[in-house]
Amino acid sequence: MSGTFPSNPMSRIDLNADLGESFGPWPMGNDRELMPLISSTNIACGYHAGDPTTMRKTVELALEHNVSIGAHPGYPDLQGFGRRNMAMKPDEIFDLIQYQVSALKGICESSGGRLHHVKPHGALYNQAAKDRDLAAAIARAVKAIDPTLVLYGLSGSLLVSEGEAIGLRTASEAFADRTYQTDGQLTPRSQPNALITETAVAAAQAVAMVRDNAVSATDGTNIAIKADTVCIHGDSANAVEFARAINAAFAAQGIQISAPFASDAK
Amino acid sequence: MSGTFPSNPMSRIDLNADLGESFGPWPMGNDRELMPLISSTNIACGYHAGDPTTMRKTVELALEHNVSIGAHPGYPDLQGFGRRNMAMKPDEIFDLIQYQVSALKGICESSGGRLHHVKPHGALYNQAAKDRDLAAAIARAVKAIDPTLVLYGLSGSLLVSEGEAIGLRTASEAFADRTYQTDGQLTPRSQPNALITETAVAAAQAVAMVRDNAVSATDGTNIAIKADTVCIHGDSANAVEFARAINAAFAAQGIQISAPFASDAK
Amino acid sequence: MSGTFPSNPMSRIDLNADLGESFGPWPMGNDRELMPLISSTNIACGYHAGDPTTMRKTVELALEHNVSIGAHPGYPDLQGFGRRNMAMKPDEIFDLIQYQVSALKGICESSGGRLHHVKPHGALYNQAAKDRDLAAAIARAVKAIDPTLVLYGLSGSLLVSEGEAIGLRTASEAFADRTYQTDGQLTPRSQPNALITETAVAAAQAVAMVRDNAVSATDGTNIAIKADTVCIHGDSANAVEFARAINAAFAAQGIQISAPFASDAK
Amino acid sequence: MSGTFPSNPMSRIDLNADLGESFGPWPMGNDRELMPLISSTNIACGYHAGDPTTMRKTVELALEHNVSIGAHPGYPDLQGFGRRNMAMKPDEIFDLIQYQVSALKGICESSGGRLHHVKPHGALYNQAAKDRDLAAAIARAVKAIDPTLVLYGLSGSLLVSEGEAIGLRTASEAFADRTYQTDGQLTPRSQPNALITETAVAAAQAVAMVRDNAVSATDGTNIAIKADTVCIHGDSANAVEFARAINAAFAAQGIQISAPFASDAK
Repeated sequence: MSGTFPSNPMSRIDLNADLGESFGPWPMGNDRELMPLISSTNIACGYHAGDPTTMRKTVELALEHNVSIGAHPGYPDLQGFGRRNMAMKPDEIFDLIQYQVSALKGICESSGGRLHHVKPHGALYNQAAKDRDLAAAIARAVKAIDPTLVLYGLSGSLLVSEGEAIGLRTASEAFADRTYQTDGQLTPRSQPNALITETAVAAAQAVAMVRDNAVSATDGTNIAIKADTVCIHGDSANAVEFARAINAAFAAQGIQISAPFASDAK
Repeated sequence: MSGTFPSNPMSRIDLNADLGESFGPWPMGNDRELMPLISSTNIACGYHAGDPTTMRKTVELALEHNVSIGAHPGYPDLQGFGRRNMAMKPDEIFDLIQYQVSALKGICESSGGRLHHVKPHGALYNQAAKDRDLAAAIARAVKAIDPTLVLYGLSGSLLVSEGEAIGLRTASEAFADRTYQTDGQLTPRSQPNALITETAVAAAQAVAMVRDNAVSATDGTNIAIKADTVCIHGDSANAVEFARAINAAFAAQGIQISAPFASDAK
Repeated sequence: MSGTFPSNPMSRIDLNADLGESFGPWPMGNDRELMPLISSTNIACGYHAGDPTTMRKTVELALEHNVSIGAHPGYPDLQGFGRRNMAMKPDEIFDLIQYQVSALKGICESSGGRLHHVKPHGALYNQAAKDRDLAAAIARAVKAIDPTLVLYGLSGSLLVSEGEAIGLRTASEAFADRTYQTDGQLTPRSQPNALITETAVAAAQAVAMVRDNAVSATDGTNIAIKADTVCIHGDSANAVEFARAINAAFAAQGIQISAPFASDAK
Repeated sequence: MSGTFPSNPMSRIDLNADLGESFGPWPMGNDRELMPLISSTNIACGYHAGDPTTMRKTVELALEHNVSIGAHPGYPDLQGFGRRNMAMKPDEIFDLIQYQVSALKGICESSGGRLHHVKPHGALYNQAAKDRDLAAAIARAVKAIDPTLVLYGLSGSLLVSEGEAIGLRTASEAFADRTYQTDGQLTPRSQPNALITETAVAAAQAVAMVRDNAVSATDGTNIAIKADTVCIHGDSANAVEFARAINAAFAAQGIQISAPFASDAK
């Protein structure tokens, strides 16, 4: 059998959020309020956001709430928050990932925790979904650090398939607050109907992803989607309300919130 | 008995050099020529020098030459090369050390090696010699990462004594190319006789440090000095010639060059 | 007559605030609400805060509200927000000031404005108050850029006197929300009574500074103080409320709010 | 008649070099040896290389040798030396250019000089040759700083045409040590015959560019090329030898070396 996360055999799903995105004197996000509502968190590693002190505090907060800890490495572009594409070579990417993931892993272990996964950030995440060499470099870097780390990537992306190809366990990420097109792709943010702003609609989409492995595309057709983990966008204004609604919807449906490959539900 | 390195019972000494100090397009140092001549190296971790790619390459070079690998963390001051004092709080220092040392440790382990020691760089090294809170923060950060790591510090410094106080193994560093004052302190660089420029004189001083645990001070008196490791300044013009002369002088005296607490001489 | 700003002959005072302290994706401060309430602003220049886009937007906002524009250069320490002392040599400081002030000056002029003053930020401001070489280096750098620039410094500081010594016009800065000691020094923040938290008390202190060139020290004695400009701390929670109260108190006393050496009140 | 530089009516040509590319403790290039051999220099502005002290020293060196001073702004990518493409929006580019060019302009004027031109660096230069929005943003930013600044761009590029379109004076740059294809494009560096390594051949190509406004393409055909300025790659090993050979070849042909739009030959 493959090394991928079984698609919710017991109706379990991971809720993840990108936290630890403050930098120096500048706060960002509602880490304290969101942490109790998720099962895994992706912590910035100092290149696009985060700094050593923010990293340690966020790790400690995650441990306090029994949330699985992941590294969230990004491009070396603090001013652009890692959201601008950069033309880095696969070898540079390998080293970039190793540096950032290792830094967080060490802080995690020093605090008594254990690193659980890696999810690339921003432009690196998006480029790795479609660029095989980039995806492969990330996967190799993660495996070289610890072959038991789970690689999070966009559902259906090359990042997930390249991770699986070298034997990594992966988690396919889906979005409750984004619409999908008939071909399974996210509707680009440039289009007016890209975002789902109604919490109830988003929660219903999340439930359908878990229960039916499906989502209703923008043209009304039902399409298949693999969703091992659902992302809560921590930097949106109503992130906490949104996370609570999804928690409630999952509870009502008997869906457990649990990090992928974790032995117990949270 | 204490956790400190026995002062050369079998006439062994460590030769260390600060390497991996290139950054991006800018090379620095003679890493390829120096690596075969030393028993341990301190590799910059990206804050005052070094970058992920330089770190990996330097780690690989050290492994190739069976040189013990140490992290060389510094202040976040690339332009000033970590040589300018900064007023950072002990808690900030703790996190700074954890981040940088963990990054190098992960790259080291991914490359099949094992991190051996930590030596602070530049202004951080100098301030930690005299500031107890700073020294204690560094020692605690190192111990939390791995209590078997060896802490390198200036011989007689608070960094060494704070490391020993919490049970770390330490290595007292002495300098073959610097003169000492009667009180055991290094002659400040502002004074004309601070540096030893003749290779033969420096080699003789290194031999005396190992064999007699002593050095001749600037006023001619013989003073005791604990020297577990001798630093080769990698960025000086004649570093390679200097390293060769010390290697030859040690060989002539039957002194083995070996990293502290290493089971075998190199 | 001297080149200094006449101490409020017609009961005029400058109100300044440090704005433009956002960086990349991280906002800071209430620039939009504070700008209408002040007569001069000090804009971060990209080293401790600010980035090119934030600088341009803040300059445009100041021009819109007819607020005099100053550069607010700081140490190259983004993570520490320029609040950590750094040991930079006077020559390095000269270049540091030239770079940052020139960058803002150019953006200001491209936007149709004219740079009015320079006020060092954070640790650089505090160190320049007491270190003559540092103060002199800053003053020389400002004069070399444009000898008509006004140099803002702590009232009674070496920065002000060094600026005057080379013929710069200066503005002595006082604080409405900080208490003073009998010797005219600010009460250190480490002491419990360092800050004035009641808006009415702060406004009264500001009025006394302007009208009487005096302030009541912590022991009740009345001490003389030169106040050409009063600082509104833009990053405090109640900065807007505080600024409004001071505006109202000045209006009630017939005190005009006007940038130093400006031909007209705002 | 247009605002462009007349193509060598009196057999004049500019020789430019990218200098001031050191950073902090890391030297780069042969600035001292090259400066006497060129008529204009492009000085890095602190984002991809250079720092305030390096900028001032390079400006002073240029003034000493009567070399026209240009700003050489690049992407905010120190580790990648500005050679990696970045996806920045035109508005961000506008601000990026304003910041860096203004910083150098101020340092130049403080040192008694006057900024003469702007030439984008590395990936920014290459992308601006083919991306109209990017090219237009750079041209607008330069014009807003000072409409008399000369914009240097690749001969035949959109950067040159966008500059001319808004009334800037431009200088078309050609390369003596690169081969050209039949369509007038540079042979990509990925091809084996991209570089001209023989100094005599390069010097002959430079002479042909000036005298005949033509160059021999890789297939032997003669193609037209507009060359207002020829670039000396300062970071190559034989840059000085190469610059001397071109100087000698030009002298033998009676070609004057002079910055574009400068009143006098150097």
